Amino acid sequence: MKKFILAPDSFKESASAIEVCDAMEKGIRKVFQDEVEIVKLPMADGGEGTVQALVNSSHGRIEQLTVQNPLGKETIAEYGILGDNHTAVIEMASANGLHLLKIEERNPLTTSTYGTGELIKACLDQGIDNFILGIGGSATNDGGSGMAHALGIRFLDKNGNDLPPGGAALIDLATIDSSQVHPKLASANITIACDVNNPLCGFEGASAVFGPQKGATPAMVEELDQALFHYSEVIARTFDKHIRKFPGSGAAGGLGAGLLAFTDATLEPGIDIVIRESQLVDHVPGANYIFTGEGQIDFQTKFGKTPFGVIKTAKAVNPTIKAIALAGSLGEGYTTLYENGFDAIFSITPGASDLATLFKNAEENIEFTTEAICRLLK
Amino acid sequence: MKKFILAPDSFKESASAIEVCDAMEKGIRKVFQDEVEIVKLPMADGGEGTVQALVNSSHGRIEQLTVQNPLGKETIAEYGILGDNHTAVIEMASANGLHLLKIEERNPLTTSTYGTGELIKACLDQGIDNFILGIGGSATNDGGSGMAHALGIRFLDKNGNDLPPGGAALIDLATIDSSQVHPKLASANITIACDVNNPLCGFEGASAVFGPQKGATPAMVEELDQALFHYSEVIARTFDKHIRKFPGSGAAGGLGAGLLAFTDATLEPGIDIVIRESQLVDHVPGANYIFTGEGQIDFQTKFGKTPFGVIKTAKAVNPTIKAIALAGSLGEGYTTLYENGFDAIFSITPGASDLATLFKNAEENIEFTTEAICRLLK
Repeated sequence: MKKFILAPDSFKESASAIEVCDAMEKGIRKVFQDEVEIVKLPMADGGEGTVQALVNSSHGRIEQLTVQNPLGKETIAEYGILGDNHTAVIEMASANGLHLLKIEERNPLTTSTYGTGELIKACLDQGIDNFILGIGGSATNDGGSGMAHALGIRFLDKNGNDLPPGGAALIDLATIDSSQVHPKLASANITIACDVNNPLCGFEGASAVFGPQKGATPAMVEELDQALFHYSEVIARTFDKHIRKFPGSGAAGGLGAGLLAFTDATLEPGIDIVIRESQLVDHVPGANYIFTGEGQIDFQTKFGKTPFGVIKTAKAVNPTIKAIALAGSLGEGYTTLYENGFDAIFSITPGASDLATLFKNAEENIEFTTEAICRLLK
Repeated sequence: MKKFILAPDSFKESASAIEVCDAMEKGIRKVFQDEVEIVKLPMADGGEGTVQALVNSSHGRIEQLTVQNPLGKETIAEYGILGDNHTAVIEMASANGLHLLKIEERNPLTTSTYGTGELIKACLDQGIDNFILGIGGSATNDGGSGMAHALGIRFLDKNGNDLPPGGAALIDLATIDSSQVHPKLASANITIACDVNNPLCGFEGASAVFGPQKGATPAMVEELDQALFHYSEVIARTFDKHIRKFPGSGAAGGLGAGLLAFTDATLEPGIDIVIRESQLVDHVPGANYIFTGEGQIDFQTKFGKTPFGVIKTAKAVNPTIKAIALAGSLGEGYTTLYENGFDAIFSITPGASDLATLFKNAEENIEFTTEAICRLLK
């Protein structure tokens, strides 16, 4: 009995990873009916869709919580509890993402990661001790201070008063009081899905590189960079942790730095986390085919994108597995991936068409393309 | 050594059948280099591209001749002499096609097939004794009388004068004088590529069904239908040939009827002729794969289109051959072709795109899609 592993990312704006898996399965079943074993491992790269993919592959659940959005207003955020019941998957963007704000509301001087901290707190309160944090798409530049504050850490000025929310206020930070930190935070295992190497400060830092897309003017970038520099000095003095130049500490407006400072978090590429959590390697031995895919596949796919990670992992475990990738769109240089373990790459697009139509028909097109491929494999 | 047969139609407006073959070969060679045998049989369905395809597959040549266009003006027409040096392939549209006239010039009352007859005459003069006639795309409604006139047959009124050109004048036909017919016409073997069953006259006849697209008003349709009816009566009286109700006699404004009346022509579906002339069946035994394709593939492909005919023929000779079809566009119901011998059908379209771009990149897209398929077959 032939064994298929289905490990696609979502096709952005048209099908979630599990919907892609289901469409692929339909195509396979049309050709092989019940003669094959199919393992569905919806994937993600640590960005949008990571919670959903890991919840689907682990048969976990989605939870909702009302928390503070980047401006301190109420918003309903979602997070995932995996099938093991002791791992939470949180996308910071669900509470504090840029997409939650209108363009005129964007203000990295004052936006806060407090809501992300509330999500972590709620999980700690219910006994969760393992965390996967997706930190892409943030609206914030507060060095993770808001997140830490929600977990009981206080940021005080020279008069002993709590600082107001946001990165700019950190210029007045005098002392950090962690005496009332959540008692379970220290023992929590936290893995941050992080695909950037930016440090907290400087020309390659959080404020300079990511600030502008969050609404920062050049003057605001300067102000925020100085505030985060000062923040890192106080952290170093208080905890003997030197996170300012740490690669990835600048991710998500310095949320990376805050997690490194106040927890035992480690950073890891998103796709590596998802591949591990999905237990892909356990399924690969004995499998004949692995199908993956993403909305766009091109030469950039080899820089940390899901299909690349999936196929690299599968081929390392089982070099004879046939690795097939589908894409909504095949872009420049995609055939260079044939040098990287990809056995065959197909577009699902049936003909001249606009994006809206292709998005609408994505699942059917995936099913039909998979069917054609399987008819060749039979 | 694996053997591939490449037998696609042209991809209309983007690549000729031989260009499609060449692109497919590139894709195959990328995967298999010199380890495979490739036979290229560019195909057509009797319509546009038939001359080119058969010239290419037989290693023949294209000839040019100045002849009369549908209105009697000079035009340069092309025809093919196949590699056997005794077969001509003529598309009537090259001399007398609708595409040669401006819209305001269209007039089925007077347009003539004389130029088509000139092409046949030139071939007879050089010793050609086998003809394949593609008759699609005509601008004429003259029952093939112009064609016959160019070959020496005279159409006279009651006063013994030659009739003027065109179908309308046939209402005055009194006698047909074939005493000066080209001496080699009688022994010529003529096969008409014809995919319609329309009779010469009546509601399903040449004038009623095809007249309007050539510029006929309802009154002109009536006039032409009566003229062709009279024409068929004179033919029956003169030659004892009863062609009025013969299926296909209404093709190309009655050119079918004229050929049936004045020669020993036979009608045959275009794809069947091209398949026979290309000697496809001789190449199929021992072949592992046959690739075909066309610009559009959908449920209508099973009604006489090239990929259907090619695959049906190949599977009849060699049921284990793997039949793969490529298309620029996959349309409604294309997967129903899997019930008709098609093993796998793929679009060559790499993503959301407009037709102009797809036309421009067709050959590259064919090459890349063939490459991906071959990587699965390897």
